[in-house]
Amino acid sequence: MSWCKNVKGVLLDITGVLFESGASEPIKGSIEAIKRLKDSKIPVRFCTNETTKTRQKLLQKLHSIGFSMKEDDVFPPIPACCQILKSRGLRPHLVVNPDALSDFCEINQENPNCVVLGDATDNFSYQNLNKAFQLLMSLETPVLFALGGGKYYKEGSDLILDVGPFAKALEYACDVEAEIVGKPSKSFFGAVLQDLGQPAESVVMIGDDIVNDVGGAQSCGMRGVQVRTGKYRPSDENHPTVKADGYVDNLAHAIDLILQS
Amino acid sequence: MSWCKNVKGVLLDITGVLFESGASEPIKGSIEAIKRLKDSKIPVRFCTNETTKTRQKLLQKLHSIGFSMKEDDVFPPIPACCQILKSRGLRPHLVVNPDALSDFCEINQENPNCVVLGDATDNFSYQNLNKAFQLLMSLETPVLFALGGGKYYKEGSDLILDVGPFAKALEYACDVEAEIVGKPSKSFFGAVLQDLGQPAESVVMIGDDIVNDVGGAQSCGMRGVQVRTGKYRPSDENHPTVKADGYVDNLAHAIDLILQS
Repeated sequence: MSWCKNVKGVLLDITGVLFESGASEPIKGSIEAIKRLKDSKIPVRFCTNETTKTRQKLLQKLHSIGFSMKEDDVFPPIPACCQILKSRGLRPHLVVNPDALSDFCEINQENPNCVVLGDATDNFSYQNLNKAFQLLMSLETPVLFALGGGKYYKEGSDLILDVGPFAKALEYACDVEAEIVGKPSKSFFGAVLQDLGQPAESVVMIGDDIVNDVGGAQSCGMRGVQVRTGKYRPSDENHPTVKADGYVDNLAHAIDLILQS
Repeated sequence: MSWCKNVKGVLLDITGVLFESGASEPIKGSIEAIKRLKDSKIPVRFCTNETTKTRQKLLQKLHSIGFSMKEDDVFPPIPACCQILKSRGLRPHLVVNPDALSDFCEINQENPNCVVLGDATDNFSYQNLNKAFQLLMSLETPVLFALGGGKYYKEGSDLILDVGPFAKALEYACDVEAEIVGKPSKSFFGAVLQDLGQPAESVVMIGDDIVNDVGGAQSCGMRGVQVRTGKYRPSDENHPTVKADGYVDNLAHAIDLILQS
């Protein structure tokens, strides 16, 4: 069990780790686990691909079910994307969830010259995908951002398509490669690590997504641990390309092992 | 101009070659071109990825605008797919255009054990894609058929997403490779060639899709010629992976060159 030794920082996925998607209560033991981690002075950051709501609303939800993290410790893709858009002078055509729109309110969206794809859920309509496709085809240099690379997540008992497959559809249609903002992008993890102030090799990422959480963290030099909550499926433990440094029943189990080491 | 010499058989794409998608009249000169080809005893077959209507309705449309081909000479993907489903005992969950549904009426669709994706247009909803995704994820051996591999087609002045991008989305989400029934599948072209009764090297495929028509035909040993009608775009002549044996203004131009050689 070497993954839990000498841990000097922890990154936590949110949905599927702190609470189950669609549920209104925390996963058992997760609130106390984060408290124990903080009491032991190990810094924590929350690293999420959540784009179905604003960062404010996500934080409100977390606080309403008993968590107490600060806004600055929560890293979703949209603020990172807005920074990129501003710095490169890009004006997005947005295919995102209506509940996330206000996080883009300071971004000029007139005469768009790129497409930003979030977890748009019902907004992933044939009509909206065609609009994004037609814009990309009209640009001399098409630019497509995907807010995360997730394949699917779990809501209630159902697996639900995430933004990744829709990004692949547009990549194929337009012969373009999406720039991922969010997990598993190295620059996204890098920004969170910099804020954490610990070197990658001393940090453990804990998540329910074998590819984007575990594999993504490992690609950045961190340890990656998968929880058996959220969208975890037993077949993940035999994943063809990613082998987690550890598998744990849930967040509380992971934190116990880290604090005992 | 060596592509037009010694042609002993011709395969023709339909939409974008005989008529423009959404239009109610033939592309100028195409009816007469096919007549000239028949008069010169060069056999012709029609090789289409059209899945937005039944073969009967497609034929009715062709006849109504002045063409006179026989039903047996038209090869769309759905009849080929039904043969495969029957021979392998597969029961499809269909994500197809409502207007094409009746071509599947003899296929058992209870308790589905595979997914068939056609050009479903508005039926490519988030909800329908999730249903197909969930079925594939529930199968021990997920089987996904895509009726053609097209990226897009042209309707009026708009480029519109075809079935290919949606197949890519499900392939990525489920870690599965779609079996393509239709162009550019080798077995699909092979069946048409067999019916034509000429060896691939004596046959020219004429289409508006640089990858699926031209590239697909070339992969089977045929010559592939692109018309500058339908979804043709000037950038197709500098396509990164496919170089057509010839580019022609339209079908009539291609047939003139073949008959003059």
